Amino acid sequence: MDTDALVAGIKQRKIAALARTISLVENGRDGYEGVLSELHASVGQAHRIGITGPGGAGKSTLIERLVTTYRKRGVTVAVVAVDPTSPFTGGALLGDRIRMESVSLDPGVYIRSMATRGAVGGVATTTREVCDVLDAFGFERIIIETVGVGQSELAIAASADSTVLVLVPESGDGVQALKAGVMEIADVFVVNKGDRPGADRLVQEVEVMLGIRRGNAYRHVAAHHHPTAQPPQPPESAVPDGGSPTLEGGASGGPGWEPPVLKTVAREGVGAEDLVDLLERHFETLFQSGGLEAIRRERLARHTRAVVDRALSMLVWEEGDGEARLEAGLDAVVHGRMSPYKLAHDIVSDLQQARRNGE
Amino acid sequence: MDTDALVAGIKQRKIAALARTISLVENGRDGYEGVLSELHASVGQAHRIGITGPGGAGKSTLIERLVTTYRKRGVTVAVVAVDPTSPFTGGALLGDRIRMESVSLDPGVYIRSMATRGAVGGVATTTREVCDVLDAFGFERIIIETVGVGQSELAIAASADSTVLVLVPESGDGVQALKAGVMEIADVFVVNKGDRPGADRLVQEVEVMLGIRRGNAYRHVAAHHHPTAQPPQPPESAVPDGGSPTLEGGASGGPGWEPPVLKTVAREGVGAEDLVDLLERHFETLFQSGGLEAIRRERLARHTRAVVDRALSMLVWEEGDGEARLEAGLDAVVHGRMSPYKLAHDIVSDLQQARRNGE
Repeated sequence: MDTDALVAGIKQRKIAALARTISLVENGRDGYEGVLSELHASVGQAHRIGITGPGGAGKSTLIERLVTTYRKRGVTVAVVAVDPTSPFTGGALLGDRIRMESVSLDPGVYIRSMATRGAVGGVATTTREVCDVLDAFGFERIIIETVGVGQSELAIAASADSTVLVLVPESGDGVQALKAGVMEIADVFVVNKGDRPGADRLVQEVEVMLGIRRGNAYRHVAAHHHPTAQPPQPPESAVPDGGSPTLEGGASGGPGWEPPVLKTVAREGVGAEDLVDLLERHFETLFQSGGLEAIRRERLARHTRAVVDRALSMLVWEEGDGEARLEAGLDAVVHGRMSPYKLAHDIVSDLQQARRNGE
Repeated sequence: MDTDALVAGIKQRKIAALARTISLVENGRDGYEGVLSELHASVGQAHRIGITGPGGAGKSTLIERLVTTYRKRGVTVAVVAVDPTSPFTGGALLGDRIRMESVSLDPGVYIRSMATRGAVGGVATTTREVCDVLDAFGFERIIIETVGVGQSELAIAASADSTVLVLVPESGDGVQALKAGVMEIADVFVVNKGDRPGADRLVQEVEVMLGIRRGNAYRHVAAHHHPTAQPPQPPESAVPDGGSPTLEGGASGGPGWEPPVLKTVAREGVGAEDLVDLLERHFETLFQSGGLEAIRRERLARHTRAVVDRALSMLVWEEGDGEARLEAGLDAVVHGRMSPYKLAHDIVSDLQQARRNGE
């Protein structure tokens, strides 16, 4: 594949080049790191939004509404559905479901389900790289849906600029079920299916868990049944000193942000405008506070470490003779005459020896 | 910590040494690889059983019954609960729930929830190592419960000698929900809560999905409401040529094994004896067919590869100056002047250069 042509195609915003580049990256085929390297200077304009939550929370419907809302505002959106996931949730891939009439022909929308099987060096790393391609291409918002709620899926959602945790009244024991660490990753909480019994109680539970004081209960932004483009306003009485309620305190979203809890009914489109407003405000807050630079710096550091580890692994298993050495020593390991640790360290030493001898 | 004393303690079957060794391994503290290396020759006696399935399937209750059944037969059992997991399932850790009166004081039972946070080199690798310690200690059966159903959790369960997939009638769309690849990993299917509506239909669906022909429907081993220690017997009429119904065909469990579907009511203990019988038969089949050696060989190969990758990563980030080099180059990466790929490859080259110069 002509990787220069791909890079040029991305810069010219050719959709065919985009699709082919993403495939190249997903499959770790020859030259993919070169392409990503070339695109790097163009990365960093998009707002990356991670959306996670249990199966059945209505994430896909919510995302469909978000996409529509962004498009109404003239903003381009890419959706990456990462699905390394519960084989039990029964959900079809987002990509399959969301290819709806309303946006499928809109060039301002791009939807992609991650092919995670061939991912070299881990799904999280490859997801970041696919987002980089979409970012370099020029999509203004990138929504990363993790269809699955293992620790790695959570980490993927949390590595976005803004992270949305979607809950529903019927998620069993409500927030009791949320383990330590989960609440911390979310910048915005959504209680979807907000017209069902228990929705208000769940909102309250989340707020209690967030340690929001009673006097600050305005932080619960109620969904309007006739949503407007207006950002949600807290009740006058609850606003202290005219300050913006979301620009004080400090929480997971960086300095100056306390995660709000938003009630939505995604099926009916209720709350989508509010959610987009919140996300825009979160991004703005991140930008102003310097939190965005910190997030991106940390993301790039983590990515560089992953690329190093991947390169070292390739040195042994692809370029070096690690696999042959492994095969040669495996009998002794299987029969207990040698430990896997001894064999592993022999392989590492061999690699160093080979390099030292300039082989 | 005196690692020689730990190794000696394990060999003398001292429970305090066991607990401390597992902690050492989980946290990747100094000397853990040495201890594992010393223990390697003693590893390989245990039958490792992975148990996976969606939250709410009753895995913990089933495991409690399995433990009791094994103990009645005089067999020692360790349980490792891996929980890198859905923060949404609301399940308490198995370890917390299963510390029941019936077995908590029994020295023939050991229950441990994996601490996955500190795991160096991934949860799957550390889980294997903890199982190795339990194996070397002398536990005859090791049950690995993955509380969570992401791809990595599934892989952990599947790396056991025998893998049990636990389903329940209420798991939504039944087997329609099971993605390709999940059916293949299970050696035994359990339909738990088998007294609920839809249980029989789920059993049938699984069998259809397994491609079991109608004439072979005897492979559905119905749970007895008064379970006995007898292995379940297929109806005479359905046994072809007197052959054992589970020793023909070929499926995931290695040559000579077709995964049976067992209905259980774990809460009432129904089916636990049958499940233990099936697991014993599966292990015997694996042993006879050579499948066991193949599984273990592959497991050791995978483990050696993981240890190599971990050692290389340590070389750069712990022993080498990778972190300092990263920090020095990160500004250029953040501001788009250098790509993370260039920086990563510089770090790898530096490492090689340093080694070449005998530093």
